[in-house]
Amino acid sequence: MSELCQFLFEEGKKSTSMPVVISSRIRLARNLMGYRFPRHATHMELSRVAEACKSTLLNCELLSEPKIFAIDGLGATERCALVEAHLCSIELSKSEFGASLLVTNDKSTAIMLNEEDHLRMQVFRQDLEFKSMWFAISEIDDHISRSVKIAYDDNYGFLTSCPTNVGTGMRGSVMLHLPGLVITGQINAVIGAVQKLGFVARGLFGEGTSASGCIFQISNQYTLGLSEIDIMARLNQVIVSVIANENLARKWLLKNRSLLVYDNVGRSFGLLSGSYTMESEEAIRHLSNMRLAVDYGFLPQAWRPDIDSLIVNVQPSHVQLASNKQLSTEERDIERAEMIRKFFEKMPSLKF
Amino acid sequence: MSELCQFLFEEGKKSTSMPVVISSRIRLARNLMGYRFPRHATHMELSRVAEACKSTLLNCELLSEPKIFAIDGLGATERCALVEAHLCSIELSKSEFGASLLVTNDKSTAIMLNEEDHLRMQVFRQDLEFKSMWFAISEIDDHISRSVKIAYDDNYGFLTSCPTNVGTGMRGSVMLHLPGLVITGQINAVIGAVQKLGFVARGLFGEGTSASGCIFQISNQYTLGLSEIDIMARLNQVIVSVIANENLARKWLLKNRSLLVYDNVGRSFGLLSGSYTMESEEAIRHLSNMRLAVDYGFLPQAWRPDIDSLIVNVQPSHVQLASNKQLSTEERDIERAEMIRKFFEKMPSLKF
Repeated sequence: MSELCQFLFEEGKKSTSMPVVISSRIRLARNLMGYRFPRHATHMELSRVAEACKSTLLNCELLSEPKIFAIDGLGATERCALVEAHLCSIELSKSEFGASLLVTNDKSTAIMLNEEDHLRMQVFRQDLEFKSMWFAISEIDDHISRSVKIAYDDNYGFLTSCPTNVGTGMRGSVMLHLPGLVITGQINAVIGAVQKLGFVARGLFGEGTSASGCIFQISNQYTLGLSEIDIMARLNQVIVSVIANENLARKWLLKNRSLLVYDNVGRSFGLLSGSYTMESEEAIRHLSNMRLAVDYGFLPQAWRPDIDSLIVNVQPSHVQLASNKQLSTEERDIERAEMIRKFFEKMPSLKF
Repeated sequence: MSELCQFLFEEGKKSTSMPVVISSRIRLARNLMGYRFPRHATHMELSRVAEACKSTLLNCELLSEPKIFAIDGLGATERCALVEAHLCSIELSKSEFGASLLVTNDKSTAIMLNEEDHLRMQVFRQDLEFKSMWFAISEIDDHISRSVKIAYDDNYGFLTSCPTNVGTGMRGSVMLHLPGLVITGQINAVIGAVQKLGFVARGLFGEGTSASGCIFQISNQYTLGLSEIDIMARLNQVIVSVIANENLARKWLLKNRSLLVYDNVGRSFGLLSGSYTMESEEAIRHLSNMRLAVDYGFLPQAWRPDIDSLIVNVQPSHVQLASNKQLSTEERDIERAEMIRKFFEKMPSLKF
């Protein structure tokens, strides 16, 4: 088992998860002054940037036991697994040269080197904790700024490869579980409203991906002309309002369409317990219903973090890595179903 | 609860059921000499025919505690329930005047009066028992012939309303559960072969109906020029060969596609246990998989007759009759799912 593989499957401490919010993230895009942006840089420049960043990051006491993975040293499956685990962007995972990913041992911080920008720092939480994320990421940012010279313009703010990131270079995003809005058919109206406010709502893996399992990412679209605090405050406001709408939808469903809820949840429970082959998309759809079941109190709250982990672990590259042999798609579907069945053997039954 | 309703839901003695064969049936079509066939008869003639038949049938000691239901005295739901229970043809159930159904208390004999012919006697078994059925139905036929004059021609044999029944007036039919042939994609070839031999293979409710739950009826098409023994021997030969093919397909599946089998069966078990609303078609499809599970030994053999009963009881009019109030389609789907869930609460889990 590779180092990355061990790292991905390491049991972290049980997080306290909450209904609706799956996780939140802040990322800062930064570039080193005097070097071209990665897409235009020579191999020599990419290497120098990476070296400079690594040396400051590995000396940073804020990062607990960081591991650095050189992307070009990883196999295709490992790269995909990093994306599935939401530690790394699809773009970084496809990098041919000079890109690395630093991850702390608690997986709460991941820093991409030579993605679209030289540095993309990300801090994650299981909850809606912009303040704590902002403190954490600012400290890392300050640490880096003390050792390397960051590209900054007094008029524009931080300079980034893509104009949409110029300014704070910050993107806040929250992953939300919105089955209530999906089932009641309100999701498109809500996404539309979110977009009108200047935010983006996307599927499980960001831009251009679909919303498997009713999971949506909402993030800010612009950073120029806004302070970090503004961005976070406005994003927080939007998220709080989406959560309120989702909770209303759930309440309405349980009051007026309880049988539909029981049927969705009961069928998913039955299929997860009884299937011998299951595609990733189907598994995530049913596990999404199990998360909803926990939120409704049909299953004990203690199971939510495990269901969240399972939603990550049933994805194709995770299933492949967890197995010790090369799997065909069919074999992967079988392994996935087995993993899920074993999990459900320990699960108490639904209490409506 | 109406008399018919009580009668339909009465617990009979537990039958010994077998794999593949759900039930078999022999029916004889007879007409009384001197009366026009029902479709051309006047109300007066229909009444006279019915009276003559009833008086001989109610005096027949071969029929144990027979009940007679006048079709025009039944509601639409009760009529449909008789069809669902395979006691009565769709044609008889739609009759406006003069039609009746006599059923013995063990439901092994049902005699339709003034359907397409004056008399259509049917004897049923849970097994492939042509001999015992033939003895039973012949005795009833003899009893009737002693009290009423039956239309018979020395050249043609028994005269019937439809030319395909002229001769013996006999139709033997067997209801077979053929999931192996359906899953392996051989069913159409088998049906084609059966048809070439002069037999008909049809869905659950005879002519023009689809094969819900992989259940097929195979019966003889012609009776003219053949003796009853010939018909039964040839039908038996065809059925035995279809059963052998089905068993081969099942063996092949378990050996070469075991995961597909486990997945089908496991998913159906999960859905039957967990659903809160289910349409009839879906219920029959999953219950068909449970019958297969019993045959494979994944569930105890003792459950097969109960599963067979449930396949009858989940049908729309049975669900309606079992409830004490008028149900909409949606309410029926909910009642059905509840009936099934309760049944599955007592069911042991699958053992592969």
